[in-house]
Amino acid sequence: MKAYTEMDKEELRSELAALKMEFETYERMDLHLDMSRGKPCREQLDLSMGMMDVLNSQVDLSCDDGTDCRNYGVLDGIAEAKQLIGDMMENNPDNIIIYGNSSLNVMYDTVSRAMTHGIMGNTPWCKLDKVKFLCPSPGYDRHFAITEYFGIEMIPVPMSETGPDMDMVEELVSKDDSIKGIWCVPKYSNPQGYSYSDETVYRFAHLKPKAPDFRIFWDNAYGIHHLYDHDQDYIPEILMECKKAGNPDMVYKFASTSKITFPGSGIASLATSLNNLEDIKKQLKNQTIGHDKVNQLRHVRFFGDIAGMVAHMRKHASVIRPKFEAVESIFEKNLAGLGIGEWTHPMGGYFISFETMDGCAKKTVHLAMKAGVKMTEAGATWPYHDDPKDSNIRVAPTYPPLEDLKVAAELFTLCVRIVSVEKLLGIE
Amino acid sequence: MKAYTEMDKEELRSELAALKMEFETYERMDLHLDMSRGKPCREQLDLSMGMMDVLNSQVDLSCDDGTDCRNYGVLDGIAEAKQLIGDMMENNPDNIIIYGNSSLNVMYDTVSRAMTHGIMGNTPWCKLDKVKFLCPSPGYDRHFAITEYFGIEMIPVPMSETGPDMDMVEELVSKDDSIKGIWCVPKYSNPQGYSYSDETVYRFAHLKPKAPDFRIFWDNAYGIHHLYDHDQDYIPEILMECKKAGNPDMVYKFASTSKITFPGSGIASLATSLNNLEDIKKQLKNQTIGHDKVNQLRHVRFFGDIAGMVAHMRKHASVIRPKFEAVESIFEKNLAGLGIGEWTHPMGGYFISFETMDGCAKKTVHLAMKAGVKMTEAGATWPYHDDPKDSNIRVAPTYPPLEDLKVAAELFTLCVRIVSVEKLLGIE
Repeated sequence: MKAYTEMDKEELRSELAALKMEFETYERMDLHLDMSRGKPCREQLDLSMGMMDVLNSQVDLSCDDGTDCRNYGVLDGIAEAKQLIGDMMENNPDNIIIYGNSSLNVMYDTVSRAMTHGIMGNTPWCKLDKVKFLCPSPGYDRHFAITEYFGIEMIPVPMSETGPDMDMVEELVSKDDSIKGIWCVPKYSNPQGYSYSDETVYRFAHLKPKAPDFRIFWDNAYGIHHLYDHDQDYIPEILMECKKAGNPDMVYKFASTSKITFPGSGIASLATSLNNLEDIKKQLKNQTIGHDKVNQLRHVRFFGDIAGMVAHMRKHASVIRPKFEAVESIFEKNLAGLGIGEWTHPMGGYFISFETMDGCAKKTVHLAMKAGVKMTEAGATWPYHDDPKDSNIRVAPTYPPLEDLKVAAELFTLCVRIVSVEKLLGIE
Repeated sequence: MKAYTEMDKEELRSELAALKMEFETYERMDLHLDMSRGKPCREQLDLSMGMMDVLNSQVDLSCDDGTDCRNYGVLDGIAEAKQLIGDMMENNPDNIIIYGNSSLNVMYDTVSRAMTHGIMGNTPWCKLDKVKFLCPSPGYDRHFAITEYFGIEMIPVPMSETGPDMDMVEELVSKDDSIKGIWCVPKYSNPQGYSYSDETVYRFAHLKPKAPDFRIFWDNAYGIHHLYDHDQDYIPEILMECKKAGNPDMVYKFASTSKITFPGSGIASLATSLNNLEDIKKQLKNQTIGHDKVNQLRHVRFFGDIAGMVAHMRKHASVIRPKFEAVESIFEKNLAGLGIGEWTHPMGGYFISFETMDGCAKKTVHLAMKAGVKMTEAGATWPYHDDPKDSNIRVAPTYPPLEDLKVAAELFTLCVRIVSVEKLLGIE
């Protein structure tokens, strides 16, 4: 097909008429489809139902060291869980705190603690005139929501296939001591599915921030969430790289089992240096006596070890890989060569990122919604919901059943085409 | 036996010699007993093992409204859990948020949110020169630890059998707008086991605080934790009383299932006015996508309803009542009439409070530790660990097996006697 960008007005008008007729067909379907959030689907959840059987009234709920998981205590997690999650995060169990059910909560608490008490003896951020975070964008809306909630100024940093613009990151953190952090999803990033290059990770580890309490918020949400067996992204382990670079305390690394077992009923974790851990535990002991050890034990007994977890993730991949492939194939079929959009081709994670022509994202999402397909709100992937080009749309293929997803993807591409043609025709 | 306070020096010296010989006997036993923390014992934990069976891989983990508890969502708790915990707290489910595994965490987060963002539009506490809390004392050490951690000045308020000194509370909160809160354990208080009188509750509800963001932190930790079937303390429901008094937003009420099912693996809750809930949810949505719904469902399925929970608490009482009675009976046998100590007689909760002669608490706890019996650190029941009379000791009878507990209680009374005689003899 001829690229829209090559068509004259006449051709565009005729194309628009045809597209609009097609749109009416979709409208009549009374669709209620959701590609908005990175939620596992029912088949994925079913994969973990065995976890409901590993503990029962006949099972001893004690750890290897004799700790009764049913009672109070153990601030930082049972040893078995630290081992399992340590292997999952590629970190030493000694560097780990096992938390409750959500890594978002851990990140929030980490920012909140820095606000009220500061990091390792530095001034509490709430006492400073200005606190800023770097925000590789597009990025994860819930990260940006935390920093916005605390009144932290967010500075977008462009993302590329190799990660954030490191020239800009290096420049900014070395000059401005009000820059206290950066949000990173280093592997299968949200929403683009990009994984940082080795060089990007090394440059992160070698940052020379002006602020002594600058921290990299390294949200390794998709560390083992591959789509393919033999084509997996690999990134160097950031704690070790920071240690080697002489910056051992510069990173907080987060992870959870939310997209491994049951979101909201899994376990979360933070890995960081022993200095940071000591700093954190001083706070944590005032906040809780301990997290849910029975659930930690449940996860450990279900997976056995990291090999069990990796095998489990292969089952997840089998469920969602066809969904990613279906979406990409429909995008290719309906949009390739039209010159009106680009999309990413992730090898893992939960999202495909779509770039429309400038100024078309909001209209596209709105039009899809009109026909019953819910997308992530346009702008959500940028700090303050402010996508300067109004071009980024996050596509979340995992949740809908495959057949629904195909309909949703078809409709989405139709919306992209309509909005693009209207833009080219100068129709507001 | 003659009261120690009536003995002359000669008698006291002779008594001391005898007591010290007895103490040596205990020392030789190489005891390792723990009466320090309010932890359930193994038999109590066993009562909830059935909870491990109610969910398994063959059970549908959906709520009545169709919500799949295995997936993301539901910020404030599933409807069934709100109903159950609402009945437990004597509150409307609409006034409730179900949290994660610990009410301590909820209290911490409540203070932390007030520090960084203020309460219902008022100035964040971290922006104020001075923030103060009233602390009925003796009280719960972990409450005091939270306010101390946030640099909040703590003002002790004397406790009596009817609750805090309300003359003092009324006077202070009406005059000083830097007083932002008060810690309360209104029923079977920690450590005394006192329950507030109706009048105390009414006076709380009718407080006229100078600070618009003054809140009562009402930790109803032992709301249904009775020791006896037909001799139970009852207190008026504080949310309703505040509402009737025209102070609907003045109270945050906390509770959890920590001492009902498994501490650390239960569910926690906050009940408050709709205005406060709205204020809280604005924050909570940035902190988490939702708490552990599977565990909420597990609790609901295990208890069925509040009647099931009440029946369950009767079983707890059967396990721990003999322990409370054994301790009190040993205290009575060894200390009655000696004029050297007083203790409380709770009808519920987890503690007995012991008052030594002035200046004897620390020494008594230290001496008991020397013979292998761990007590709550003396002073812990006061803000800043500063018990002005050095007289209060918290006794926690639930955790040790009954026979161990008897030995520990005997040894404790022996320590009280030794330290008291030494004081009367002027021995440092």
